[in-house]
Amino acid sequence: MKSVGVVTPQRASFDVPIALSGGATLPAFDLVYETYGELNAEGSNAVLVCHALSGSHHVAGVYADQPNNVGWWDNLVGPGKPLDTNRFFVVGVNNLGGCYGSTGPMSTNPATGKPYGADFPVVTVEDWVAVQARLADRLGIACWAAVLGGSVGGMQALEWTLQYPDRVRHALVIASTPKLTAQNIAFNEVARQAILGDPDFHGGHYYERDTVPVRGLRLARMVGHITYLSDSQMAEKFGRELKNGRLSYGYDTDFQIESYLRYQGDKFTAYFDANTYLITTKALDYFDPARDYGGDLQSALARAKASFFVASFSTDWRFSPERSREIVYALMHNGRDVSYAEIDCSAGHDSFLLDDAHYHSVVGAYFDRIET
Amino acid sequence: MKSVGVVTPQRASFDVPIALSGGATLPAFDLVYETYGELNAEGSNAVLVCHALSGSHHVAGVYADQPNNVGWWDNLVGPGKPLDTNRFFVVGVNNLGGCYGSTGPMSTNPATGKPYGADFPVVTVEDWVAVQARLADRLGIACWAAVLGGSVGGMQALEWTLQYPDRVRHALVIASTPKLTAQNIAFNEVARQAILGDPDFHGGHYYERDTVPVRGLRLARMVGHITYLSDSQMAEKFGRELKNGRLSYGYDTDFQIESYLRYQGDKFTAYFDANTYLITTKALDYFDPARDYGGDLQSALARAKASFFVASFSTDWRFSPERSREIVYALMHNGRDVSYAEIDCSAGHDSFLLDDAHYHSVVGAYFDRIET
Repeated sequence: MKSVGVVTPQRASFDVPIALSGGATLPAFDLVYETYGELNAEGSNAVLVCHALSGSHHVAGVYADQPNNVGWWDNLVGPGKPLDTNRFFVVGVNNLGGCYGSTGPMSTNPATGKPYGADFPVVTVEDWVAVQARLADRLGIACWAAVLGGSVGGMQALEWTLQYPDRVRHALVIASTPKLTAQNIAFNEVARQAILGDPDFHGGHYYERDTVPVRGLRLARMVGHITYLSDSQMAEKFGRELKNGRLSYGYDTDFQIESYLRYQGDKFTAYFDANTYLITTKALDYFDPARDYGGDLQSALARAKASFFVASFSTDWRFSPERSREIVYALMHNGRDVSYAEIDCSAGHDSFLLDDAHYHSVVGAYFDRIET
Repeated sequence: MKSVGVVTPQRASFDVPIALSGGATLPAFDLVYETYGELNAEGSNAVLVCHALSGSHHVAGVYADQPNNVGWWDNLVGPGKPLDTNRFFVVGVNNLGGCYGSTGPMSTNPATGKPYGADFPVVTVEDWVAVQARLADRLGIACWAAVLGGSVGGMQALEWTLQYPDRVRHALVIASTPKLTAQNIAFNEVARQAILGDPDFHGGHYYERDTVPVRGLRLARMVGHITYLSDSQMAEKFGRELKNGRLSYGYDTDFQIESYLRYQGDKFTAYFDANTYLITTKALDYFDPARDYGGDLQSALARAKASFFVASFSTDWRFSPERSREIVYALMHNGRDVSYAEIDCSAGHDSFLLDDAHYHSVVGAYFDRIET
């Protein structure tokens, strides 16, 4: 199938201060974003794609000078694809606090002239959605045809329906959860402690020291990866296969799974920022729309007006199907229009990124129903 | 119920060199052990209790000068308890490579006059059992009435029946597995990388530098703890409860689960040795009796002559009931006498350490059947 082809990131600067959930105020900020397809005259065909932990605004296509840098959801977004850019105007945006160009810890703090580093405030899913709304204003999008995301991207889609119930007609919440469990938080906490305890972290001000907390970020990614894959898929893909055909009786790589994890960890440290990792895990931990409703998700979602598509994956043990069903039940009890798909897929949490035929056909069928 | 009371560790020194699985030879070694109950005249009532990752020879009772230092399986082992010390002579031994007194990385390397540190060889479950057999010789135990263990302790019980089929009448293999999965190895690898990458590790020679790789060992224990508890028990015990009643919007402790993990990690570094942690995780990863039988567990277990008691716990996702059933089926197909109990218990892998009524009653009933 065809890709959207060569795309160019754009930058929007905002100089009206924004008050964040944690109490801090950002005097100004930039958002980097990409768009695919054409906004129609009525502005009624716009779809926002929200990214997950390590994602970015680069959702589809390639860059002219980086033909191998394919957008992270290119298999889903493009001409004739489930999210069809012949019909929809699609927007991808790097979240606030990110490390792909939007204002974040690596940006210059106007108050000091140095990078924010650890002084960049912890932001929340609510904050991300609030700044995405400013981008929508800038692009002339009064109401999204749909907001779509997987994992913490799905949290953003859900949050849009709560914070701006009149600005989103459809929300697609995929491989997500209404809140993290203690076990989810525990894994994030191990990742954070790995970064915070790295001597090269320097309290988050490592840019000035010309160091990178490589060891901590690497460990964070390794432990993350265990939770992204299913036990069964790991068994299938790696099992107990040895890297060099024999046991080392030492601490070199014995098993293929070790080699895979080390590789994933190393690769990640080359392109991702540790402060952004910390911020994003906190945004995940904090998300809990039912918090102000005594834990009652149904009451929390009562103000949503959108129609919903919710999907989960059978082997996802990070955000299991059960967690998606909680969202579905809460919406149904509010009389909302909800479609729910539980996809049989062996790839665990990461299934949402894969080109699974059943999964893509239900997402495509849902978008086909959306009027523009 | 009564405890075995005050106990005193003993030390056995062996000066006949032992060749280890990895090719290294230890010229001499010590084992620290404890015994409870009396060995009968026929030497037919001896039970060996094998410890898991962080366990020791201190299985039951207390020390005269440490009345709060209760043995790790005191709820199971004692007069009138499931493993009744009025009937059985029970032996607990700190494994080779350990950090509780048996020869290990903290011991003096006779070749250098300095601690072994990283020069202590990687040992295997097979090696542990081989040196346990030397201790049995020393104690005059020709054949154990039973060998018992949970987790990697259960691997040792299983290995006894393979390496010394005529020296063990009953094996009790609890919360264990015939081999680690890729996911199990992955968690161990994260723990190892945390330790190996700690700047205070100094290639395993930190004793000489007067440092301890506290950060790495702490992370290793934190990630371990996530796998010892069940998701449901974590949810029940901690849920999303906040430590200080409000979100910090920073990296202090927000949730109780974070506080619990940090506490467990900190506590562990005060008493456990990082080199021993590395060795033990390797012993776990390497254990695979079916390796030399093309992966066929039934063939691998064909030489076992013992009767077996196998138990698993419903919420154990580290070594799930499915893994215990593999052992049970392989033994049954070999015509072995096997009792199997799948215990409903919410506490995950750590259930094997708890005083669960159903669990203890089946273990007790099994020991009651064992003739002495």
